[in-house]
Amino acid sequence: MKNTILTIAVLVLSISFFSCNKENKTSPYEEKVEKLLGQMTVAEKVGQTAQFTLDVIGEGENVYSSHFPFKLDEVMLKDVLVNRKTGSILNTASNTPLTLEEWHRVVSRIQELAIETTGIPVIYGIDAIHGTTYTQKATFLPQQIGQGATFNRELVRKGAENAAYETRASNLPWNFSPVLDLGRNAAWPRIWETYGEDVFLISELGKEVVMGYQGDSRDTVGKHHVAACLKHYMGYGTPVNGKDRTPANIPLQELIEKHYEPFVRAVEAGALTVMVNSGIVNGESVHASYNLITKMLKQDLDFDGVVVTDWQDINNLYERDRIAKNDKEAIKIAFNAGIDMAMVPYDVEYTDYLLELVDEGQISMSRLDDAVRRILRLKFRLGLFENPVFDYTAYDKFASNEFKADARETAEESVTLLKNEEGLLPLSANQRFLVTGPNAHSMRTLQGGWTLSWQGEKVEQFIDNKNTFLTSVKNHSQNVVYVPGVEYNMHGAYWEEKNINISEAVKAAQNVDVILAFLGENTYTEKPGDLNDLSLSQNQQNLIKALSETGKPIVMVLNEGRPRTFADIEPMVDAVVQTYLPGTFGGEVTADILFGKTNPSGKLPYTYPKHPNSLMNYDYKPAENRTEMEGAYNYGAVQDLQYGFGHGLSYTTFEYSNLKVDKSEFSPSDLLTFSVDVTNTGERAGKESVLLFASDLYASITPDNRRLRGFEKIELQPGETKTVQMQVKASDLAFVNMDGDWVLEEGSFKVQAGSEVVMINAIKSGKWSNAFR
Amino acid sequence: MKNTILTIAVLVLSISFFSCNKENKTSPYEEKVEKLLGQMTVAEKVGQTAQFTLDVIGEGENVYSSHFPFKLDEVMLKDVLVNRKTGSILNTASNTPLTLEEWHRVVSRIQELAIETTGIPVIYGIDAIHGTTYTQKATFLPQQIGQGATFNRELVRKGAENAAYETRASNLPWNFSPVLDLGRNAAWPRIWETYGEDVFLISELGKEVVMGYQGDSRDTVGKHHVAACLKHYMGYGTPVNGKDRTPANIPLQELIEKHYEPFVRAVEAGALTVMVNSGIVNGESVHASYNLITKMLKQDLDFDGVVVTDWQDINNLYERDRIAKNDKEAIKIAFNAGIDMAMVPYDVEYTDYLLELVDEGQISMSRLDDAVRRILRLKFRLGLFENPVFDYTAYDKFASNEFKADARETAEESVTLLKNEEGLLPLSANQRFLVTGPNAHSMRTLQGGWTLSWQGEKVEQFIDNKNTFLTSVKNHSQNVVYVPGVEYNMHGAYWEEKNINISEAVKAAQNVDVILAFLGENTYTEKPGDLNDLSLSQNQQNLIKALSETGKPIVMVLNEGRPRTFADIEPMVDAVVQTYLPGTFGGEVTADILFGKTNPSGKLPYTYPKHPNSLMNYDYKPAENRTEMEGAYNYGAVQDLQYGFGHGLSYTTFEYSNLKVDKSEFSPSDLLTFSVDVTNTGERAGKESVLLFASDLYASITPDNRRLRGFEKIELQPGETKTVQMQVKASDLAFVNMDGDWVLEEGSFKVQAGSEVVMINAIKSGKWSNAFR
Repeated sequence: MKNTILTIAVLVLSISFFSCNKENKTSPYEEKVEKLLGQMTVAEKVGQTAQFTLDVIGEGENVYSSHFPFKLDEVMLKDVLVNRKTGSILNTASNTPLTLEEWHRVVSRIQELAIETTGIPVIYGIDAIHGTTYTQKATFLPQQIGQGATFNRELVRKGAENAAYETRASNLPWNFSPVLDLGRNAAWPRIWETYGEDVFLISELGKEVVMGYQGDSRDTVGKHHVAACLKHYMGYGTPVNGKDRTPANIPLQELIEKHYEPFVRAVEAGALTVMVNSGIVNGESVHASYNLITKMLKQDLDFDGVVVTDWQDINNLYERDRIAKNDKEAIKIAFNAGIDMAMVPYDVEYTDYLLELVDEGQISMSRLDDAVRRILRLKFRLGLFENPVFDYTAYDKFASNEFKADARETAEESVTLLKNEEGLLPLSANQRFLVTGPNAHSMRTLQGGWTLSWQGEKVEQFIDNKNTFLTSVKNHSQNVVYVPGVEYNMHGAYWEEKNINISEAVKAAQNVDVILAFLGENTYTEKPGDLNDLSLSQNQQNLIKALSETGKPIVMVLNEGRPRTFADIEPMVDAVVQTYLPGTFGGEVTADILFGKTNPSGKLPYTYPKHPNSLMNYDYKPAENRTEMEGAYNYGAVQDLQYGFGHGLSYTTFEYSNLKVDKSEFSPSDLLTFSVDVTNTGERAGKESVLLFASDLYASITPDNRRLRGFEKIELQPGETKTVQMQVKASDLAFVNMDGDWVLEEGSFKVQAGSEVVMINAIKSGKWSNAFR
Repeated sequence: MKNTILTIAVLVLSISFFSCNKENKTSPYEEKVEKLLGQMTVAEKVGQTAQFTLDVIGEGENVYSSHFPFKLDEVMLKDVLVNRKTGSILNTASNTPLTLEEWHRVVSRIQELAIETTGIPVIYGIDAIHGTTYTQKATFLPQQIGQGATFNRELVRKGAENAAYETRASNLPWNFSPVLDLGRNAAWPRIWETYGEDVFLISELGKEVVMGYQGDSRDTVGKHHVAACLKHYMGYGTPVNGKDRTPANIPLQELIEKHYEPFVRAVEAGALTVMVNSGIVNGESVHASYNLITKMLKQDLDFDGVVVTDWQDINNLYERDRIAKNDKEAIKIAFNAGIDMAMVPYDVEYTDYLLELVDEGQISMSRLDDAVRRILRLKFRLGLFENPVFDYTAYDKFASNEFKADARETAEESVTLLKNEEGLLPLSANQRFLVTGPNAHSMRTLQGGWTLSWQGEKVEQFIDNKNTFLTSVKNHSQNVVYVPGVEYNMHGAYWEEKNINISEAVKAAQNVDVILAFLGENTYTEKPGDLNDLSLSQNQQNLIKALSETGKPIVMVLNEGRPRTFADIEPMVDAVVQTYLPGTFGGEVTADILFGKTNPSGKLPYTYPKHPNSLMNYDYKPAENRTEMEGAYNYGAVQDLQYGFGHGLSYTTFEYSNLKVDKSEFSPSDLLTFSVDVTNTGERAGKESVLLFASDLYASITPDNRRLRGFEKIELQPGETKTVQMQVKASDLAFVNMDGDWVLEEGSFKVQAGSEVVMINAIKSGKWSNAFR
């Protein structure tokens, strides 16, 4: 047996970035920024803070849509860029992707006019969530939830680098990504846009994606990189009732310990911009919160970048949340809370109102200067003054085989085998198959929302690769019958189904050996993705119920944005494969796994619930999982979940042994090094995400059941053993107390990797008031 | 037409109680208390704070159960009362109700030995939730949720007076009631123990029940009254995941504005004791919270009564929440947070630990004295020193026809008609009926938990009245066939069903005119009542689906502790009647309503959801109900609910007109008087709960959609009009801001009663830091 030692210096890395951030607190451009600021009129300053959507300056019936082929409307363009001196444009037009050439033409003209008017280039922002959403032929990775399932820092970094390249190739230097929200309510329609429910996983991958987007230096983001935008700051992913953009209630200590942390780590890693949560946290509209935006983000983290609103969210303070009596008051509130740039997509009067507010002294000149300074600094960092546009034809890696291979690899490592009874998987090419289910033959459902269109509705129209699950399965086997049984209404709401023909699927099943059922959801994002019942659709469940009567083995492949519950049919299926929203290559890699060409290695980045009203996270409080008490009132109530966080099977088996720590007793400033031996005890090579969990046994407030404190992905040949080392700062075992301070208390922790357990003991307490601790 | 003017001086009343409370801050017993305290040993003081359960001192195998007929175990009795000098006993033995005579015998012996030992009588506490739970032959009202549906202060007060009488007749002077929690998560298994989801309804009925329990003077609670115990202080009714005793996250401003308020009002009304929430609020175990218990309750409210823990909740700080390393440390934490009495049901070592903690100075003597002083004060107020026991035979109203008639009237006014298509109801006695469903013939399901046993499982064994829905329907009609179709497993978990025989019910339906389906839930409370799916059981839904195929009209009568969703079958039923848990007379009054002998007048005290993952309250934030926005990203999402808060139909019709206010512009100290004319425009007499809602149009934090600010129940003959006046203090239109202060801001409110709307305008702002404002 080989025995390799891997050392992972994740935390050392983060320390170095911390100091790096401190050194860069003032950028090399401060003098230029001040000089330029000193020359600007108030109207020019006001204009810099405005961001309108492309449809406003596109030729079309109105500001809400544009004709195609897309053309700029020179009248509106002049209003926006010359009269209003607008500093930023975002989005595509009519929710339709443009070609590289079209982007080049559009952005070139915008920059030409902007620079002619004010000497300052526009910064163009875009939602390039898992690849360049609004550029035709772009390469699409798995959505973030699938990237989370890889537990693979390198793949996430590489995916971000490639996405940055293709986005900059589109002359779009600012990407509204990554999502650093915690996806902690399974019903929430944007779970799939997160890296899952765990704060450590999100923080670690968040740092990677920021560095992948921005490259080596946040002060010189070159032509292959873009500015990252951390979103949605903060507390967005946990709405009380699961609906998008509805109030979230998060105790202060949990807000700091879990929701703030990924933003802290990504700012530390150099993230240049932050987008504000559209919602309401603890009763407060976040866009109106001086405490959250100015104090906790800008001041406490020494953040020198740009804070941008989310779509129409200043207007929402008036029309939705009713904390302003009109749009002008809403602008005043948001601006004084600390926003720097206003994403006021259609409301060009914004600049008039802001000008009035500054004239009236309702917004101070120093607040306006602070915003503009940050925006100019960002534009210098992105090199926009020197290169407002790049030649798109020079980006020869755009949509290259290299990028495709990377996206494919990430997709492959994301697919998660949840159940495999009696080794039904991998399949043999010689078997006869029924392929069924509404997700079996759709590129759209593989991709999810934010792909070539907002809700994903234009995927089939613009995508080249047509390798769905069905076509990919056919590439492995000659004996495939396809009867969908249930189909989505591709022109309706995401939950609408049609052509229900279960009996035909049952009939077709009679003559096959194995049933492959591709189930899940159609595409959605944001509020249109809200749901009423987390259960998998009744039609799809009925399909499985009917098919199970045939007695044929069933492989259920899930392709869904969030974990739809299926407790009733789970016993009827022999294997379950979760593909999440795997992107362009999801069909291919899933078929490879089904047929054993590759070995699955994804692990669930969230807790998969079993019932619609039993939603949990793995880091629950002990009160949420109770064995019976003695006496008259037996309060026992154990959890009933489908699959746990971190669950994921392989075609081989791994054994853990010899978990050790270099210090069984430690102090707050210590760095702990854990090591564990992992052996591939099966017959084939496989990859394994080694997860390190710690449980604080007693604490001054009720501790979490357990917490992920380290992870590393390795590959092992049959029989091979590797010793995996993971370093954990003692300060990262701390929690946030009721006062909002980070504290490490004396006492024991149980640390676990696989089946291995080691106890460690804090012999000195520590306290940190700084989020960077 | 008659036109009567009713003036309701609710708020004037609360002002007078406030001053009353202030005057009584020191009771007439302070001298006696201090004298007694000065004579007590530390061991005696420690003993006063202990509360053990009856099984501990009952003859039986162990402390967890007792033999029947019940006998005190003199050895254990001596340990508890003589060695440990215990101040309080609670609960019945072996979860079985005793007779009045047995209670008299048990309590007499306890008092005899206690007084012989320390000179101080024991205070006996009991859960008499909707009548005297653990006394045989007691009168059972509807559970609190049904009382809430009456919107009738007088009935709630009368019910509390009667329950107090029967409880004191049992020689039980302390009732762990009312529940003042807000039932705001429909899945929570104790929704039915609350007055519903609204803070004003709960606050108003809470004051009535406290005054009904305690009588006119909190300092001289006589032989027909008991001490109230407000529970569960606070934030218990809104667990994040709907499970009992799991963490609740409640923003500070909402905690004060909504969850604290009913406790404030009930303390103001003179409530003598408070029980602490078992759960965790905002990360903090409430039993460990100095801020919530000592500061906000004892200090800020000048509360001079007793704070008692809930069942085993000190132990829970150790075993469940892990904020103490052992039982002794848990006692220290809870005691120093401010608890006065420890409900440590089986843990007699409690007194040893507390003695050690005081000896060691870990709990100060002044803290111990504070607790004992409160306990002694309570015992003086209850007259226990003069009358440790009363002669039970002198309580001739116990289980009297008078009390039964009161309980019946409350049940009648609770029943809520939710749907009645084409006037299917009332029924005619000449029609032929199928009675079906698992709730059709059960006294147990009428009663719910906390009836003659904890989970309600012993109702049938001990109840005299056998008028179920079925027998009551038979009293109205000769033509009744009964086929349950679905039955509950009365010896299993509450959700277990058996004897599923839907086809037999369908067969029986062929020969009838109308189907009466009695559906809902079996009985439960606390954690055993947790659920996984809020949908009504599939068997019961299947029963309706099958029956609807017959084409016969279906009346669905719900008998359930919480609003189980039934969207799929709702279109299949022609009438829906909600009975909640109506108590002993629920069968009779429901049949009277079905056959039109009486006219329904209940209104929903909660929002009835339509889907398991769409849980809402009526006082939601505007963000939770959105019409479409213009532009590319249309975020529209309107609510999809089954029935709204306050919904309830009648067999007659009411018209509202002429809503007026005496001051359309007002200042913070104003009292506003609203009046509205209500006319019975139908053919028969009826009762109507007039509800007054106000909406704050704009505020500095996002305002609630609307809030109940007044209600009054009236009766109207056909053609009669009454002018209903409701008074609202301007300060009660205030909200709590992010700093935790009550503020009234300048601006407009929309006030609504029925279809009538009037606008009012605050022309001066106000601010109150005192919860009593």
